[in-house]
Amino acid sequence: MNFLEKRILKDGVVKEGNVLKVDSFLNHQMDINLFDEMGKEFKKRFEGKNINKILTIEASGIGIACVVARHFNVPVVFAKKSKSINLDGEMYVAEVESFTHKNKNNVIVSKKFLTSDDHVLIIDDFLANGCALQGLISIVNDAGATVEGIGIIIEKGFQSGGRIIRNLGYHLESLAIVEGMDHTTGEVYFREQGDK
Amino acid sequence: MNFLEKRILKDGVVKEGNVLKVDSFLNHQMDINLFDEMGKEFKKRFEGKNINKILTIEASGIGIACVVARHFNVPVVFAKKSKSINLDGEMYVAEVESFTHKNKNNVIVSKKFLTSDDHVLIIDDFLANGCALQGLISIVNDAGATVEGIGIIIEKGFQSGGRIIRNLGYHLESLAIVEGMDHTTGEVYFREQGDK
Repeated sequence: MNFLEKRILKDGVVKEGNVLKVDSFLNHQMDINLFDEMGKEFKKRFEGKNINKILTIEASGIGIACVVARHFNVPVVFAKKSKSINLDGEMYVAEVESFTHKNKNNVIVSKKFLTSDDHVLIIDDFLANGCALQGLISIVNDAGATVEGIGIIIEKGFQSGGRIIRNLGYHLESLAIVEGMDHTTGEVYFREQGDK
Repeated sequence: MNFLEKRILKDGVVKEGNVLKVDSFLNHQMDINLFDEMGKEFKKRFEGKNINKILTIEASGIGIACVVARHFNVPVVFAKKSKSINLDGEMYVAEVESFTHKNKNNVIVSKKFLTSDDHVLIIDDFLANGCALQGLISIVNDAGATVEGIGIIIEKGFQSGGRIIRNLGYHLESLAIVEGMDHTTGEVYFREQGDK
């Protein structure tokens, strides 16, 4: 069991409807030392990849991406969510659905900050059905840039997002893959990932 | 002239209506090495303060706060913007107006993550009229916690936010204070801050 799985068992809270609350250390209060461990781990898992930029999405991806970026010594670009398109200049746009909020948003990145020269590591906190991630990949592809890898903190392995992305041939690494949860006992079951 | 003022002159873009675009290094693409310099500088300016938590607000404050937090070795809590109140459990709420987006949002922090034991450094990217900052201060006060300091990246010194906050007795440090801008020449004028 790795450092993140241990932390999820210690401080995560399972709610009805396959909801895993990790707001005490990941997406409301943020444990920066834990984020630093994540950075080290992603650096190891994407060893040898030529990465010059990290792309994430607001809001809860940003903090993780910025701490992870120190281990790669690269800038971070975050995609903005917007009902309307109000950035000036030209931008890449993808429409994504939110599982949590049950709505649709445009996800936007300025063309200034993503070009065909970029080799991108995509970072996000959660992967479930994968809509947000598909939007980010589509934006990288629109830019003619290369997705070198995708680093996720918590993947819900019982939803289809991760499988689809791996089937498409992307190098996806999730620090914890939750296979199931039981809100009556509070138990969380992880997919075995070997000695990664 | 400090490292940030130099960077603003180099990469900031002045637009009509007193708009300073810093999206190439601060709030869309983010220069993590620059954020690290900011962290060092805030650590120096708030030397001797007993700080156990950083509070910021989504979205563009989060990345800065997380990198700055490494210099204080404390967790970060980010206030969420929401039209509705949809976090479970009890929360602190403040209503704030956005200068950029010309709308009102509730700003929300879970009561779990801010208590009367907390000594808080508030971090945000911009200070203009100070509405967002006033909301954050009000939330810290509601929690019975202590505002030990306020660290701002860019203050618009020609708007009233900074003056009001200093008049209220808060220890406010802005890494760059813009006194004026000229969009026809692209010039930016900073307030002299001595050898800080």
